[in-house]
Amino acid sequence: MANETRTSVTVLGLGPMGQALAGAFLKAGHPTTVWNRTPAKADALVAQGAALANTVVEAVAASPLVIICVLDYNAVNAILAPAGDTLKGRTLVNLTADTPERAREMAAWAAAQGFDYLDGAIMTPMPTIGHPTAVILYSGPEAVYEANRPALASLGGTASHLGTDPGRAAAYDVALLDIFWTSMSGYIHALALARAENIAAKDLAVYAQGIVHIMPNIMTEFARQVDDGHYPGEKSNIVSAAAGMEHIIHAAKARGIDASVLSAAHAVARRAIDAGQGADAFSRLAELYGKPSA
Amino acid sequence: MANETRTSVTVLGLGPMGQALAGAFLKAGHPTTVWNRTPAKADALVAQGAALANTVVEAVAASPLVIICVLDYNAVNAILAPAGDTLKGRTLVNLTADTPERAREMAAWAAAQGFDYLDGAIMTPMPTIGHPTAVILYSGPEAVYEANRPALASLGGTASHLGTDPGRAAAYDVALLDIFWTSMSGYIHALALARAENIAAKDLAVYAQGIVHIMPNIMTEFARQVDDGHYPGEKSNIVSAAAGMEHIIHAAKARGIDASVLSAAHAVARRAIDAGQGADAFSRLAELYGKPSA
Repeated sequence: MANETRTSVTVLGLGPMGQALAGAFLKAGHPTTVWNRTPAKADALVAQGAALANTVVEAVAASPLVIICVLDYNAVNAILAPAGDTLKGRTLVNLTADTPERAREMAAWAAAQGFDYLDGAIMTPMPTIGHPTAVILYSGPEAVYEANRPALASLGGTASHLGTDPGRAAAYDVALLDIFWTSMSGYIHALALARAENIAAKDLAVYAQGIVHIMPNIMTEFARQVDDGHYPGEKSNIVSAAAGMEHIIHAAKARGIDASVLSAAHAVARRAIDAGQGADAFSRLAELYGKPSA
Repeated sequence: MANETRTSVTVLGLGPMGQALAGAFLKAGHPTTVWNRTPAKADALVAQGAALANTVVEAVAASPLVIICVLDYNAVNAILAPAGDTLKGRTLVNLTADTPERAREMAAWAAAQGFDYLDGAIMTPMPTIGHPTAVILYSGPEAVYEANRPALASLGGTASHLGTDPGRAAAYDVALLDIFWTSMSGYIHALALARAENIAAKDLAVYAQGIVHIMPNIMTEFARQVDDGHYPGEKSNIVSAAAGMEHIIHAAKARGIDASVLSAAHAVARRAIDAGQGADAFSRLAELYGKPSA
């Protein structure tokens, strides 16, 4: 039997990401059991050879390795509530995104119930799953990670074990998604601004990608400044950043466009200027974000 | 004389960017005159062969092509006020960032005074000036752009003439800086969040660059959706984006970190969900940003 050496895997939750995960396990030859609240979501996977479980308990009982990827930890808790006893002795890998606190709570529940737990965060879009470009972060006990590494490798790309604190992957996840969603909000807002000037989104997108290309070097420099606590502002500073933001806010308001997101960012820059930090590099705002205004 | 065929150029304003511009003209062999309110900023350029003018009028009189790059158009107006007559018959290229409205006002003033005017926007950081990676956008009369193209080529990289509307370069500029400053605000906020979890900025930066690498494809897809007015949400939608934002906001607030920027972005997503658009792609928010809440 070709599958003899492949760990059986159960995937709970068949949203777009859950389907991609189950598909990758199937493709790599793992006997794969799936469960979803709406069973019809399993049809394509069953056609590829997945076993459809009727209940969560039946699904968990089918495999030593259980993967869950749903909307948030409220959904995780609701789904796993009846399966606490069944999980005993198995490994749960939770690829659902949520806060570090909730990841640590889940690890504590796992310890109390007597099952192994890894918390994970998927950092790349769904189509990367099973391909070399996927990036998945894990945290939790090293031995549990090592034991399951061969099966998890089926999900593709780069898997990084960030440490034994179960909240570590979620901490990276929230910080990285912070960058992603804030940036995408800026981009979508820029498309609204461009449209008001009759600039097609596709025309702006070409230059937007140029802006994205200059970011990695600036990010590296800002990171060094933050780690050093030293913010040289000779090349550009908070005053010039605030002036740039003001042009954008004025241009948006003049066109009846919501400017709430950048106005909030500008307010933080203003607080720094008012505190006498205007000549420092923009990276210094990391200190101010850490100290909310009264 | 080697400089015989090179246009004489005047650069007004010697902040970091103005110094880079003047340096690039000098390096390309243009006789270059410089002026700055604080003359000491010209010392390094004078050592490289620049002529230092004592007044703005003297500086403008020295060259057929005058470049200005200062903090904003208020500064441009204050600097050029005494030089209106002297500019007559010359070309002014204004590389100062501001709104499309102000670029159009400046073009109207140029027409009234009888000088040629190009509005420009520098889209890449100061160290790119004079190098192949520079990106500079121009708008204004085609003939004026073509006549000055050889001299402007000394500034390096890609120069794009976006059209005859003098506000076009500024419109691209505000939209692209919107992306840049919103993204950088998200990044700096993420560094604050990481620090609260004892994650070094340099460790987060490595993964942050991975996040940046996935953006261009997503930007292209969002642009197509916005241009088409069609927002398929099968792969990811506004509800899942809002859930992700909520985790980040909760994680920030739990650590006493300001969450104002992402909270503003989240509020726009909530408005879309309340309007029944939650299952659509995130790009649909471009419509909502264009219609501010009452």
